[in-house]
Amino acid sequence: MGGPAADILIRDGRFAEGPAPANAALVDGGGLLMLPGLVEAHTHLDKNLIGMPWYRNEIGPRRIDRIEADRREKKRLGIDPRRQSERQARQTLALGVTAIRSHVDVDTEIGVANIEGVLGTREALAGLVDIQIVAFPQSGMLIRPGTLELMEESLRLGADVVGGIDPASIDRDPVAHLDAIFGLAEKHAKPLDIHLHEPGELGAFTLELIIERTRALGLQSRVLVSHAYCLGMEATAADALIAQLAELRIAVMTAGPPGRPAPAVKKLHEAGVVICGGSDGPRGTWEPYGTGDMLMRATMIGQRNGFGRDEDLELALETCTTLGAKAIGLDAYGLSVGCRADCVLVDVETVAEAVAAPPVRKLVMSHGRVVARDGALVDELSGGV
Amino acid sequence: MGGPAADILIRDGRFAEGPAPANAALVDGGGLLMLPGLVEAHTHLDKNLIGMPWYRNEIGPRRIDRIEADRREKKRLGIDPRRQSERQARQTLALGVTAIRSHVDVDTEIGVANIEGVLGTREALAGLVDIQIVAFPQSGMLIRPGTLELMEESLRLGADVVGGIDPASIDRDPVAHLDAIFGLAEKHAKPLDIHLHEPGELGAFTLELIIERTRALGLQSRVLVSHAYCLGMEATAADALIAQLAELRIAVMTAGPPGRPAPAVKKLHEAGVVICGGSDGPRGTWEPYGTGDMLMRATMIGQRNGFGRDEDLELALETCTTLGAKAIGLDAYGLSVGCRADCVLVDVETVAEAVAAPPVRKLVMSHGRVVARDGALVDELSGGV
Repeated sequence: MGGPAADILIRDGRFAEGPAPANAALVDGGGLLMLPGLVEAHTHLDKNLIGMPWYRNEIGPRRIDRIEADRREKKRLGIDPRRQSERQARQTLALGVTAIRSHVDVDTEIGVANIEGVLGTREALAGLVDIQIVAFPQSGMLIRPGTLELMEESLRLGADVVGGIDPASIDRDPVAHLDAIFGLAEKHAKPLDIHLHEPGELGAFTLELIIERTRALGLQSRVLVSHAYCLGMEATAADALIAQLAELRIAVMTAGPPGRPAPAVKKLHEAGVVICGGSDGPRGTWEPYGTGDMLMRATMIGQRNGFGRDEDLELALETCTTLGAKAIGLDAYGLSVGCRADCVLVDVETVAEAVAAPPVRKLVMSHGRVVARDGALVDELSGGV
Repeated sequence: MGGPAADILIRDGRFAEGPAPANAALVDGGGLLMLPGLVEAHTHLDKNLIGMPWYRNEIGPRRIDRIEADRREKKRLGIDPRRQSERQARQTLALGVTAIRSHVDVDTEIGVANIEGVLGTREALAGLVDIQIVAFPQSGMLIRPGTLELMEESLRLGADVVGGIDPASIDRDPVAHLDAIFGLAEKHAKPLDIHLHEPGELGAFTLELIIERTRALGLQSRVLVSHAYCLGMEATAADALIAQLAELRIAVMTAGPPGRPAPAVKKLHEAGVVICGGSDGPRGTWEPYGTGDMLMRATMIGQRNGFGRDEDLELALETCTTLGAKAIGLDAYGLSVGCRADCVLVDVETVAEAVAAPPVRKLVMSHGRVVARDGALVDELSGGV
């Protein structure tokens, strides 16, 4: 990751030590800079519009307008979760994303169809992209009876993580919402990943409730809070929360949202909180922006945090690599011996340069296999869905 | 600009009407979407580091740390204003930028050398990129005696616009600073473009002083305020200022800064203020980010302003096209008959799509000449400096 040039041995899909065997296949790295595979810690694989006709967005400004449009358009446009999740995962693999945590909608209209779709993609891309699935009650959980049962069914089908969303402002009962999802997590021994958009003091209160339950249930390292805009509130109020997040090893995900309060990446990092980056999904009905490129996300996170110094740009990249891996609990991640050989080669001088202006991905390797060159999947993987 | 497909006639470098003459040269537009040439309303052509070794940024957090590092590193790194300004203008021409307003440093150490350098580039690229030069007292004006005289010399040499910077917080005397630059503008019949980073109430006060002078001297349409972070203050205080900016046709430039208060683009636009976009310069000692791509800047402005609807993304692009042209006083700009044939072709369905995820520039035309394809200058223009 910006170290000196070196020959690297890969054996059985992992970085290895020692001299290369005589019959080892050679991949020319061209002396380029090597980064570990990029980690997408927060997206919505099931509902992008990649490869579909442009969607003219005329949605109102409130979150509930978006949630309702999302549910309506999913049906009207025929957004196929199996197809769209594979499209996004392939598109971002070509950009170096080798691990993804995806929230996947569960509700009383679609049931677990989206979970099944993304499970299908996970199987189709096994060995290429590692996909974690969060059962996500996008439309609310308590306010839509039957949703909690569908989330439990999702876990049985193979979802890895229990999701949640705005326990107060969407589900209208923060204690009941959190008790339900923490209960589900405990019952199935799964980690939690909770969308928390609630701003300011309301979000801080909900975060306190999350902290209390994490502590009571001994779920250190098992809880991630996504967005956490409330941590962008004035320093004195946020400080006490940040100390407890560090103590309980509750991770935080940020998309580096421009123009919104947001967690201060360097401050949280220095306080010992694992803070990671997520794209929140490219081209959808929610938001039209982006491609899911996690190197560009590192740029956005750097810019949102006012980072100009090289060491700070390096931290921005870590949120989309090592810290992302830590936040979502990937093992054998990184450029060390024994780690899975996932990496990205770019033609720049320094890590900071890669963040400052994301360059073409000259080569992407996943599990020791060259999967993309010059930003496109290699021939034997192209085509797709 | 997103209209239906059409054949377009170009004569003498301008969009024309009527049937094509039999011997007209054909350029295949491939049915792609056509945008007008992109307008960069605010950059610093003289001090980027394009094509130079990566600069490790370890600069302190204050504006004055940056100004001092800027002056020091300019000398130490040998940033040649002639060479670097051409590099940036060429790089962004390949991305569709056909008109640039550049602030160019004038101070008592470098004198007018940077002005001369950028004048050289303007001449070298005449007919390809239209460059406006702002004589810019980056290091302060009143606090560095002799600077005002150098600014006047810059105007005599060919600078087009009188610059200014933070009359209170840098020059320590807002009335004296503004009286001096408005006096210079009046004497030489030049427009003004003032950097105003001053936040909140201080910036609002300085902006009031700018408004008073614009009104007193009858300089409607001749003043642009760059950055204007103070307009990001709470609505009631900003509203009175915005009404006066509209009345006096004082334009505002924003880079869409993530994580800072900033002018609200839609609000200003709806109030009748001309608001335009600027990149503020790629890869420098101030900020390491970006390439100077003004389509990506439209994306940043859209994201900073929370734009999701198509009509809002279209407005974001206008800040980097038509509104940019209006703000810096370009004539014959646009896709209408009689306008200079500057345009960009992109392979997307809609204008909003071009903003949501900036695509490859398939073709760039300047003054009716094809200058770039697929993001790179055509062979006869490549090479450069």
